[in-house]
Amino acid sequence: MDSEKDLSMFTTRTDLVDDLSLNKKEIYEEVYEEGNAKVSRVFINDKQASLIDKKRGYYTTISFSDTTDHNNYSNVKNVFIKELNNMFSKENIKDDDTCMVIGLGNSNSTPDSLGIKTSENVIVTKHIYDLFGTLESGYRITSMFNPGVMGETGIETSDVITKIIDLVDPSFVIVIDALASLSIDRVCKTIQITNAGINPGSGIGNKRKEISSDSIKRPIIAIGVPMVVDAATIVSDTINYMEQHFSYNIKNKDLKINKLIPSSKQNYLKEKNLSLSSEEKNYFFGKIGTLDDYEKRSLIFDVLTPIGYNLMVTPKEVDFLVDSLSKLLSEGINSCLHHI
Amino acid sequence: MDSEKDLSMFTTRTDLVDDLSLNKKEIYEEVYEEGNAKVSRVFINDKQASLIDKKRGYYTTISFSDTTDHNNYSNVKNVFIKELNNMFSKENIKDDDTCMVIGLGNSNSTPDSLGIKTSENVIVTKHIYDLFGTLESGYRITSMFNPGVMGETGIETSDVITKIIDLVDPSFVIVIDALASLSIDRVCKTIQITNAGINPGSGIGNKRKEISSDSIKRPIIAIGVPMVVDAATIVSDTINYMEQHFSYNIKNKDLKINKLIPSSKQNYLKEKNLSLSSEEKNYFFGKIGTLDDYEKRSLIFDVLTPIGYNLMVTPKEVDFLVDSLSKLLSEGINSCLHHI
Amino acid sequence: MDSEKDLSMFTTRTDLVDDLSLNKKEIYEEVYEEGNAKVSRVFINDKQASLIDKKRGYYTTISFSDTTDHNNYSNVKNVFIKELNNMFSKENIKDDDTCMVIGLGNSNSTPDSLGIKTSENVIVTKHIYDLFGTLESGYRITSMFNPGVMGETGIETSDVITKIIDLVDPSFVIVIDALASLSIDRVCKTIQITNAGINPGSGIGNKRKEISSDSIKRPIIAIGVPMVVDAATIVSDTINYMEQHFSYNIKNKDLKINKLIPSSKQNYLKEKNLSLSSEEKNYFFGKIGTLDDYEKRSLIFDVLTPIGYNLMVTPKEVDFLVDSLSKLLSEGINSCLHHI
Amino acid sequence: MDSEKDLSMFTTRTDLVDDLSLNKKEIYEEVYEEGNAKVSRVFINDKQASLIDKKRGYYTTISFSDTTDHNNYSNVKNVFIKELNNMFSKENIKDDDTCMVIGLGNSNSTPDSLGIKTSENVIVTKHIYDLFGTLESGYRITSMFNPGVMGETGIETSDVITKIIDLVDPSFVIVIDALASLSIDRVCKTIQITNAGINPGSGIGNKRKEISSDSIKRPIIAIGVPMVVDAATIVSDTINYMEQHFSYNIKNKDLKINKLIPSSKQNYLKEKNLSLSSEEKNYFFGKIGTLDDYEKRSLIFDVLTPIGYNLMVTPKEVDFLVDSLSKLLSEGINSCLHHI
Repeated sequence: MDSEKDLSMFTTRTDLVDDLSLNKKEIYEEVYEEGNAKVSRVFINDKQASLIDKKRGYYTTISFSDTTDHNNYSNVKNVFIKELNNMFSKENIKDDDTCMVIGLGNSNSTPDSLGIKTSENVIVTKHIYDLFGTLESGYRITSMFNPGVMGETGIETSDVITKIIDLVDPSFVIVIDALASLSIDRVCKTIQITNAGINPGSGIGNKRKEISSDSIKRPIIAIGVPMVVDAATIVSDTINYMEQHFSYNIKNKDLKINKLIPSSKQNYLKEKNLSLSSEEKNYFFGKIGTLDDYEKRSLIFDVLTPIGYNLMVTPKEVDFLVDSLSKLLSEGINSCLHHI
Repeated sequence: MDSEKDLSMFTTRTDLVDDLSLNKKEIYEEVYEEGNAKVSRVFINDKQASLIDKKRGYYTTISFSDTTDHNNYSNVKNVFIKELNNMFSKENIKDDDTCMVIGLGNSNSTPDSLGIKTSENVIVTKHIYDLFGTLESGYRITSMFNPGVMGETGIETSDVITKIIDLVDPSFVIVIDALASLSIDRVCKTIQITNAGINPGSGIGNKRKEISSDSIKRPIIAIGVPMVVDAATIVSDTINYMEQHFSYNIKNKDLKINKLIPSSKQNYLKEKNLSLSSEEKNYFFGKIGTLDDYEKRSLIFDVLTPIGYNLMVTPKEVDFLVDSLSKLLSEGINSCLHHI
Repeated sequence: MDSEKDLSMFTTRTDLVDDLSLNKKEIYEEVYEEGNAKVSRVFINDKQASLIDKKRGYYTTISFSDTTDHNNYSNVKNVFIKELNNMFSKENIKDDDTCMVIGLGNSNSTPDSLGIKTSENVIVTKHIYDLFGTLESGYRITSMFNPGVMGETGIETSDVITKIIDLVDPSFVIVIDALASLSIDRVCKTIQITNAGINPGSGIGNKRKEISSDSIKRPIIAIGVPMVVDAATIVSDTINYMEQHFSYNIKNKDLKINKLIPSSKQNYLKEKNLSLSSEEKNYFFGKIGTLDDYEKRSLIFDVLTPIGYNLMVTPKEVDFLVDSLSKLLSEGINSCLHHI
Repeated sequence: MDSEKDLSMFTTRTDLVDDLSLNKKEIYEEVYEEGNAKVSRVFINDKQASLIDKKRGYYTTISFSDTTDHNNYSNVKNVFIKELNNMFSKENIKDDDTCMVIGLGNSNSTPDSLGIKTSENVIVTKHIYDLFGTLESGYRITSMFNPGVMGETGIETSDVITKIIDLVDPSFVIVIDALASLSIDRVCKTIQITNAGINPGSGIGNKRKEISSDSIKRPIIAIGVPMVVDAATIVSDTINYMEQHFSYNIKNKDLKINKLIPSSKQNYLKEKNLSLSSEEKNYFFGKIGTLDDYEKRSLIFDVLTPIGYNLMVTPKEVDFLVDSLSKLLSEGINSCLHHI
């Protein structure tokens, strides 16, 4: 087995800082729960950033169970508004700063359309201000733009964005994009807010030019929701779940109640600290069981890629999820931009 | 490990006969290739049908690489027309028999909308015939219907279908539906044609009432394309691919050229009969390696289901794929129904 | 000029009782205003019904300026809920009566999709009741159905509806449809609720079989919004507006202020009882000016029809209007059906 | 009646040169028919341009009955390819010139989405050339861009376009837009090709900055299809048709056959040179009949505008028409851009 040689080939397909294996104690600023939402605020310094191929900056991650229920929706929206306002404060955004909202992605691909659908529902006022020289009280001067994706336009997306920012010259920029995640239980269930910039299509496609406060010379706040995951992720996750499942069964094998409940109904995740000894791992999984997360993922990537099987996948209900999430994000952004 | 007890819980989520492990020699009538398309025609008798929880009948499976290329599209369409005409012959459909086309699924969920998008492009003539008492030469009396899905209507879909067939009384029925597959490399790359009937939503949702030539008392031809797959399938497939990958690496470990090619570029599937010995399996995979396909899939199902992780997934490009495939199917159906 | 011979050809293309020239005093039960909404409740008896080619029954008409403003939206929704509940009372609908909601129209034509978009957002519960034998408190047993349009299905729509009502056997039925109007200022600005039944496609297409409480043997409440108008209507309306415009200018010709305001900014409709004398009419409009409304409309119909010009038109913003109105109607229907 | 004062208020809402009343003999270069398509090629010089508030340049107008029939579709497409190639010649476009295709409009408004839907189906190659330094033989270096509309972005559309052209620096530009027409029988039945530039939203909205070969310093070819018309146009057209209808009836009043054919079935347009004498005009239409086209249109504009009635309308079938026309245009553009 020589998969190790190829690790350099392996692109970590995630934009979610929470997916990455850092010493979390070092980076967490704050963690809290509110209703069905969990929030973590972290700061990645330059050294940490280089280790995980991300950029220096604040990353806020909001995780939630679902947003189809009305109460959950309201709760997640309120948490999102609080955290976006918090990022506004970190970037020192003032009430009369002008804003450009940029929706990335492709309106013809449902999982990629989140950024566009969100930006289309942001309240835009710049043309009214340009015409009348004033706005109703409470409204911020706001413009919006969808640069498209390179596969459709043939043009490097970050170049388009830079040009349009030059043209409109807003005080700060908000970018919304669909992300790829390393973990399937984050798909459509996480909102990440960061001031560290964004690589359009970085999670999903090839490496693209980044857009950051350095490159555009003004604050940029990026809002992302993971919409896709690759097959290697699903397999790697499952092997980890198997370990916990086996560990749970070993621990509870004498529990009478479990003889009555079908195995497929026992939620082993309710027990914490489930893991197997090295011997048990070898017994159940052989050599595979001895690999660490990174090696395992790399191996699976090597197995699936040459046969064209490492496809990006998306939940079957993605149409409904994109509608609900883009509504939540646009309502939250409008609430932070305009005070009406 | 007691997952075996629960095997009865495990629903085989496929409508594709080719997914199932039958003694293929017994059932294949004919196999052929034409351009980028492979075709298998099988007949499942009553005994075989009971083994695999399917219905007695003819099943034609057309597999292809992709249909985005214009030549591939034309080739697959022509093969589809040939095979649909062949099924017409088996069912003894005559040129003046009247037809009802039924598109199953849900127009608001992209992967589920294939049946509806296809049926909407079928040329419908019944109302013209009813008005004028005649049709232009070459046209068949054809009607179309979309019954919706139970989650949206609250009504059992097969009951709706039976009522509308009673009302219109066509000589035969064509049903189009999105299927679930046991194998991810079939998703959007397989068309199945059968005269054995269909269970609306059987692949994707709960067990539903079937629609068959027995239940509707006239020939029914079902056309299906797999659009979704579940996570258990992806994991189970990958473990099998790992075995072949390891076997390939063992066989070719002294091949100098492979030292130069990254592992992730070596398509091991080009070598046939790759498998590991029992010892090698145990070495690499431990106890997991000793399970047969059914046990493995059942185990993974048990691991993923209680934590809500066994989600159905669909390729990220599903919008484009549904457009292309529904166009191909409707053009093919029009060509078989009408001679114009 | 012999257009009179053809009056029998002339189909009154409206489903709005308010469009029709009845002696309004005789039929009005009640008229009231609430915020931006005007409501009229009328009862058409058999004799009146035969005069205007409509059915006997109650007709409630809600007229409003627009629903894009949030306050207007809420107000119109509340008025709609009040009036739909009022029609429930007239039909003696009880809390445990079961309901089927039917969305008429064609999902692929924006102005025709109102019924489908509305019905898709109604909360459907029948399948849950059928599975568990009970529902959470406050929910009514509700099913939903979209029969499609004859041009797409080839099947008579009222026959489909009758069959599905037979199958599900609800206590009462709600039907939603896009209507045609005789007056363009009603388009997207009127909701009509009636218990007099409906002719699917009657406003827009050919004469179709009606669906009424007689034909389906249970109460039916039809909700309609005019989405289209024909060219003859626009022209005929304009000639009437010209008369008022001229009358206004004659009355106010010495008003100094009007010399300063461009004619195209003077809203003459703010003055009531603007009309011209016979002589003035003849001076301005010649023989055309002497025709009554019905003759004028018939003449224009005769002029436009043979040259294929009498097309049905719809406002340019119809996409936005359908989204907003279908949301309002589905929220209102859910509020009346379920008490949650 | 003082509507004349306001004529300066009256914006001629058309981008179609054929709509305008010029001395056609002076401007026509060539007129021909091919199948169901009529083509006129005109050149507007500076003096003529100033008279009609248009720009100097070549204008080709293709008029056709419909494109739903397969043969008509093919014929119109071939004529469009011929005329677009002809405009390429006039602008001296060479095979290795690079092109940027710009789709104007708003993807969320069906009649406004023509430019976007067309541009999305143009074959884009610039990113492939940038990556590999070469393209397969026959392909032109092509990029595409959708700038959005000012109502959604808050940014002046021509500024966006200028910036992106600066960035990509193509040899020439093709712009596609939905137009407004002065005549309803042109809606969805005319394609205009011009090298005179375009005012984004000029037909539909307020006066906007133009984009022309002068402003962008390279050839620009604009392709437009009228998708909307205003109410004043419909009324004005109808009064003219009434005149022809009356004239026809007067001429043929002794024709026995006409007693048998209902007036609404007699296509009077098959007779040419139908007009009324001054006296007849006065008899039928009074003072209205004595107005010329421009005065009539201005009067109707004045009557409808102050009461918010002069709405832009679009045919009810606009969804289908946009799909068909955008397919035709993109196939035609691909054929002219790439030789494959």
